[in-house]
Amino acid sequence: MTSIIITIGDELLIGQTIDTNSAWMAQQLNLLGISVTRRIAIADDKDAITIALDETVGKTDIVLITGGLGPTADDITKPVLCDYFGGKMVLNDHVLNHVKQIFSNRNRPFLELNRKQAEVPDVCTVLFNRIGTAPGMWFEKDKTIVISMPGVPFEMQAIMEDEVLPRISERLKGDAICHKTLITVGVGESFIADQLADIERSLPAHIKLAYLPSLGMVKLRLTAKGGRESELQHETDTYALRIKQRLGDIVAADKDVSMEQIIVELLTRHRLTVTFAESCTGGYLAHRLTMVPGASEVFKGSVVTYANDIKQRYLHVPESVLHTDGAVSEATVLQMATQARIMFDADISIAVSGILGPSGGTEEKPVGLVWIGLATAAHVYARKYVFRHDRIRNKELTFNAAFDLIRKELLEKYEGGENKE
Amino acid sequence: MTSIIITIGDELLIGQTIDTNSAWMAQQLNLLGISVTRRIAIADDKDAITIALDETVGKTDIVLITGGLGPTADDITKPVLCDYFGGKMVLNDHVLNHVKQIFSNRNRPFLELNRKQAEVPDVCTVLFNRIGTAPGMWFEKDKTIVISMPGVPFEMQAIMEDEVLPRISERLKGDAICHKTLITVGVGESFIADQLADIERSLPAHIKLAYLPSLGMVKLRLTAKGGRESELQHETDTYALRIKQRLGDIVAADKDVSMEQIIVELLTRHRLTVTFAESCTGGYLAHRLTMVPGASEVFKGSVVTYANDIKQRYLHVPESVLHTDGAVSEATVLQMATQARIMFDADISIAVSGILGPSGGTEEKPVGLVWIGLATAAHVYARKYVFRHDRIRNKELTFNAAFDLIRKELLEKYEGGENKE
Repeated sequence: MTSIIITIGDELLIGQTIDTNSAWMAQQLNLLGISVTRRIAIADDKDAITIALDETVGKTDIVLITGGLGPTADDITKPVLCDYFGGKMVLNDHVLNHVKQIFSNRNRPFLELNRKQAEVPDVCTVLFNRIGTAPGMWFEKDKTIVISMPGVPFEMQAIMEDEVLPRISERLKGDAICHKTLITVGVGESFIADQLADIERSLPAHIKLAYLPSLGMVKLRLTAKGGRESELQHETDTYALRIKQRLGDIVAADKDVSMEQIIVELLTRHRLTVTFAESCTGGYLAHRLTMVPGASEVFKGSVVTYANDIKQRYLHVPESVLHTDGAVSEATVLQMATQARIMFDADISIAVSGILGPSGGTEEKPVGLVWIGLATAAHVYARKYVFRHDRIRNKELTFNAAFDLIRKELLEKYEGGENKE
Repeated sequence: MTSIIITIGDELLIGQTIDTNSAWMAQQLNLLGISVTRRIAIADDKDAITIALDETVGKTDIVLITGGLGPTADDITKPVLCDYFGGKMVLNDHVLNHVKQIFSNRNRPFLELNRKQAEVPDVCTVLFNRIGTAPGMWFEKDKTIVISMPGVPFEMQAIMEDEVLPRISERLKGDAICHKTLITVGVGESFIADQLADIERSLPAHIKLAYLPSLGMVKLRLTAKGGRESELQHETDTYALRIKQRLGDIVAADKDVSMEQIIVELLTRHRLTVTFAESCTGGYLAHRLTMVPGASEVFKGSVVTYANDIKQRYLHVPESVLHTDGAVSEATVLQMATQARIMFDADISIAVSGILGPSGGTEEKPVGLVWIGLATAAHVYARKYVFRHDRIRNKELTFNAAFDLIRKELLEKYEGGENKE
């Protein structure tokens, strides 16, 4: 079974909005074994929508459409779909009551404009939108299912989960598809490809290996298609294990998880706590850690010491060190890490001080220079990094480097380096 | 002039990667007055790439392609393009030396695999990649310019800035296009649309108003096309001012800036500093503020007090308050804000405590309940919010609400409510 995703909205074509919906929908379809063969983004424009429908209806099994369903005048998807599928607009009482309820819950006045949201084509199945005002719509034509949903991400997700995915699952008897992901940290794509050349050549035709590089990390994704699911699972697991053994401790996880999930899991398993003393990252390390539900098991608090006098006052970095070595130095992060660990009563602490850019660099201390310190009860050490990107990416690279230091510390001290084979 | 963006990569179709490249490229093209009429994402697959080229070459002025240029076996864009434009692959010495230099700078071994990156079709103009190993390529056929670039965002951006945009600018004599954006905070899209109904109806045909809702904010974008740029500018400015006067203080900015830029600008203008005492947001407020270069002018440091004993120890929240009112309460955030302001010697402080989810809620204190406190030397107060989304979005909504409190405080005390007309 194949599918095509169409996203509608001028904002996508002028680049004011980043399309996160398509990735989420693609993930959900893939989990059901439905390949997405193409994604198309088009304007809020009658002709553009009609052309996209002509290109896809009758040529794929499922078309998922998002966007252009809001109450305002620039949203025209609904009337175009109604025309295309030869229906007429009718007021849906169930939707109307729901829309009124939402406005009443939010203490906002119900406007005449909002009544339009309860009008739907009489040739579609209405898909209930639990958390928003714009309903989804399910059409069928020429053996293609066409589903239209609002572009607001959480509304689209609610309709997918409540209405779309259960209906699609019912219709499915597809070939199995199986993905297996390994997360590697700290080395480049071509280095890994070189290490894996013989394993990659030995893969059977129905298994593919893809390299998905991002800042400081490369995801390796094995995809197997066709046949029985249990066999595919076994095959991908076997190849994943071979790859993991070959690559050693640069493999941080053998499932598609984030760096912060890896760290929270490791800390929880060993009943340890962590804290941070952040200068240049400005709270980003703590933010990322606390994105994981259950982070409170391993994290009690942390401090952002952006200015020098705050480093002095709360982390007892001596004025002489700040004067001689500077705020971005080994001596500073060693003291920051040591003191933060005590301040927040943690087992492990990370301290970061650097120059993320765009300005503030010198000949001796260029933009991108970052010192990261790590302290435990037993020892404290620091590493120097020079990142070569812009402010946002240097922050992200610092996060990856810092969390990888925690990971390696934990592997070495608490897991006997189990990943090193 | 029109353009189409094609992104290549299986990772886009299984949803493992969110496509940020397209938005960035679309922005750059729009600034030059080139409309993007469509974006297409396809697989790393010869047929898919060929079909996409057939659909676009000869039918639009510019085709921008990203992805599929890495050194690994799953990247096949280059040979397909070479075939399509009837060329053969040749080794480019300039690129080869550059690739070798990059590997030597990074202290990584140069592999045979990497030599392939210096091979380019002999029918293209090679576009130098200042920061990566895969060069860009510029082809022309049937009056269409086809440009292929790597998918790594910062490499694509470097090639666009260094090579592509200057060349395109040279060729251009297009109609002017002009965008003007207003940022509103805290009210819904349909409320705004209702307020603006008559202004929207009065817009001339060549000016469009679009609503771009995101969490807690709605961007309003005026787009004017055709004629002289200075006239368009004047027209959009005039309509923007009318809209701003109509909407009053929900308009946070009259240009496309982030909430944190607005706050850093306001604080800098009045030489004020801010600090944060964060519980549920776990450092996110400080992180967002410090994303703005120059944040050090207005921010010295902050504290993340995730656990109760940390709130007690450093922010002096009495045990009795934590016991009676709980950590998520008005009394707690009032004390947190008051003490954080003293601790970090700031003019304004924000304290946040809430339950972001997915679990931890009770009948009395449901998931999504967030208390935000604000303290200055003159006063301290708190507001209660109930957000209805998931952990990530509740964090984002809390950020927006907290920064909007700062904005309103500053407008009222330091700008005499200038926005209220």
